[in-house]
Amino acid sequence: MAFAIGVDLGGTNLRIAAVSEQGELLKKVTTGTKVDLGRDAVITEMVAAIRELVQGFQRPGEALAGVGIGVPGIIDERTGMLRESPNLPGWHDYPVRDEIERRLGATVILENDANAAAMGEKWLGAAREVPDLCMVTLGTGVGGGLIFNGRIWHGMTGMANELGHITVDPAGPRCNCGNLGCVEQFASATAIVRMAREAIASGAASQLARAATDDPEFSAKIVHNLAIQGDIPSREIFRKVGWGLGVLVADLVNALNLHMYVIGGGVSSAWSAFAPAMFEEVRKRSFVYAATAPEDIAKEIAEGASATLRPLRGSPRTIITRAVLGTDAGLYGAARLPMLENEAREHAKVS
Amino acid sequence: MAFAIGVDLGGTNLRIAAVSEQGELLKKVTTGTKVDLGRDAVITEMVAAIRELVQGFQRPGEALAGVGIGVPGIIDERTGMLRESPNLPGWHDYPVRDEIERRLGATVILENDANAAAMGEKWLGAAREVPDLCMVTLGTGVGGGLIFNGRIWHGMTGMANELGHITVDPAGPRCNCGNLGCVEQFASATAIVRMAREAIASGAASQLARAATDDPEFSAKIVHNLAIQGDIPSREIFRKVGWGLGVLVADLVNALNLHMYVIGGGVSSAWSAFAPAMFEEVRKRSFVYAATAPEDIAKEIAEGASATLRPLRGSPRTIITRAVLGTDAGLYGAARLPMLENEAREHAKVS
Repeated sequence: MAFAIGVDLGGTNLRIAAVSEQGELLKKVTTGTKVDLGRDAVITEMVAAIRELVQGFQRPGEALAGVGIGVPGIIDERTGMLRESPNLPGWHDYPVRDEIERRLGATVILENDANAAAMGEKWLGAAREVPDLCMVTLGTGVGGGLIFNGRIWHGMTGMANELGHITVDPAGPRCNCGNLGCVEQFASATAIVRMAREAIASGAASQLARAATDDPEFSAKIVHNLAIQGDIPSREIFRKVGWGLGVLVADLVNALNLHMYVIGGGVSSAWSAFAPAMFEEVRKRSFVYAATAPEDIAKEIAEGASATLRPLRGSPRTIITRAVLGTDAGLYGAARLPMLENEAREHAKVS
Repeated sequence: MAFAIGVDLGGTNLRIAAVSEQGELLKKVTTGTKVDLGRDAVITEMVAAIRELVQGFQRPGEALAGVGIGVPGIIDERTGMLRESPNLPGWHDYPVRDEIERRLGATVILENDANAAAMGEKWLGAAREVPDLCMVTLGTGVGGGLIFNGRIWHGMTGMANELGHITVDPAGPRCNCGNLGCVEQFASATAIVRMAREAIASGAASQLARAATDDPEFSAKIVHNLAIQGDIPSREIFRKVGWGLGVLVADLVNALNLHMYVIGGGVSSAWSAFAPAMFEEVRKRSFVYAATAPEDIAKEIAEGASATLRPLRGSPRTIITRAVLGTDAGLYGAARLPMLENEAREHAKVS
C-alpha cells in the first residue's frame, strides 16, 4: 500500500502520521519530544519517528511517497527555510527541509500549517467535493489557506493567505502586525480573552470576572462555556467574533467567489455561538453571497429588501461551513502534499 | 497576419478593434451607434463593424482567431448571457454570446470589462512581466480583475472580482449593493462627487461650492483640478480616495501576495492626488507588503518601527502601480481572450 508521512509541527506538540494514498490513517504518533527542547532535538526525534513508521508500513521495493510537514509560520519556498515563526524560535535561517530530506533520503515538503489544514479538508474533509476553497483557522491567531483548482495558492513569495491580518475595522484594536482592526483582533482565542478582560474591566461582566479570578488559566473556552450558559457579556463577545469573521468572509466571497469557506481551528468549536452573527454580516455585506446562497438562505434573503440578484437555477451555491477533521486536518493535508507532487510529476511525464 | 477582434461595449460607447497576435493595434473604430438605441441596434451595428474589420485584414484561407467582448456587468459563463448590467438595460436574459456567434460564424467570448482590462494590462501593459496581478478599475464604480498564472479568475459562478464591494469601513456610507462602507463609496468618481457635495454642505468648501454652482456637470475631474490647485477640501477628498484604496490593496496583498496591483480607470489619472495616502495605508496595514516592498520603500519601512520582516534578497517585490493602456486596456484584453482560448486548445491537442 502506497503511503506518505504527514507531520504537524506545532508550537507545543509534534504529531506524525502515516496516511495511505486512499486517505486511510495507518498510524498516528505524538512524540514525547516537546518543541521547547529546541530544533535539533525535535528534528532527531521526528526523523526517528518517521523511520519507524516507514519501516512498519513499507513493503519491499516500495518507495515512500514522501513527507509533508505543516509548520506555523512563513515558509520560503525556494530555500525550504522558515522566515518567521514566533512559536518555533531558533528555526529560522536553518535549512529545515533540506536537512530532513538529507537524513531521510525522501522528498520533504514544508508547508504553512493553515495551508496544510486547508488541503486536509479538501482531500478528506468538508471540501471533498469542491475544486476551490478558503479555510479560515481560528486558533491563538487567525490563519488562512486558499486552494484554487485543487492546489494551494502560495502567492509570489509564499506569503499569501495572511487572512488574519485583513482589516475588518480600520479604527479597531491594534494588532501585533502593526495594523489596526485585523480580524485576528476579533476572531482568535487571544482576542476572545482580550475582549473578556475588557468586559471585566468595564465592571459589567460579573460572571466573567468570577471565572477569571477562579481560574488562573482563564481561556476562550471558559468564555464559551459562560456563553452557552447564557451569560450576556460572554455571548456579546462571540457576537463580535462572528461579526469580524463575517466581514472577512464577505470580503472573500466578493473578491474570489469560491465554492466553499471552511471555518476551522480550536475556536470553531464555538460555532453556534458566533455563526449567526457571521452569517448576518455576510448576507448584509456580500451581494455575491446573496446571489449564490444555498436555497433556504437565498429564499430568506429574497424576502428581505437587499436582494438585487437571485441565485441562478442549477448554479452551484456558496457554502460557509465548519471544518470536520479537527486537529487532524493538518496531518492529512501534509501527507497529501508529496502525493500531489508525485501525481504532477507523473502527469508531466505522460504529456 | 493572424488577428482577433476586441470589443468594448460600454454604457455609452461601442468601440471595436482589430488586434494582431503580436499585440499590434491594426484598426480601431468607435461606432456611431449609441448604446441607448437598444440591444438589437447595437448588435447589428457591432456585427457589421466586425465584418468590415475582418474583411480589411483577413488573408485568404485564414481564420479569424475570434471575438472578445468586454461588457460592464456580471456574465453567466455557462449561458453567455448578462446577469446584471445596470448600464445595459434590456441585455440580460438574452443570449448575447450565442447570437453574435451565430451571426459572425466565429468564436465569441463575453467577459466582464474589468477582467478584460486586467488581461489587457497583463498582455501589453503594466503587468507584462508578471504571471499574476490584480487590477482595480476606478470609474463610475470600482471594478476589479484578478489574473492568476496568466488566466482570469472567474470564481464559481463568474461573480469573482467584485472588489468595489470589499468593506473598508464597516460603518461607512451606504452602497447601492446594500453594504456599508464599500471601497466604491470612497474611490469611485461617484464617491468623489458625493464627498465634494458633503464638503459643500458642511459649509467649509467655498471653492468646491463655486465650482458646483458654475458647472452643471460638476464632476470628479473638477474636484481633481481644484486639488491640483491646492484647494484643501478637494485634497482631503483625494486623501480619502487613497485611504479607501489603501485598505483594499492592503487586504489583497495580505490575502493573495500577488506580484502586481494595477490601478486603472478614469479616476487613476488623479494618481498623484491619492497615491501617497494609498501607500501610507498599505504600509501600515500589510506586513506582507512591508516584507515584499520594492527596495527603496522597504528601506524606508525598515527605518520605521513597524517592520517585522525584511524582504528576502533576490525575492520578487510587490508592485503597486498605475495602469498604462488607459481606455484601450479593455479592447486589447478582449482581443486577447480568443487567442488564449485557441492556444489552450492547441496545447490540449499536443499533450
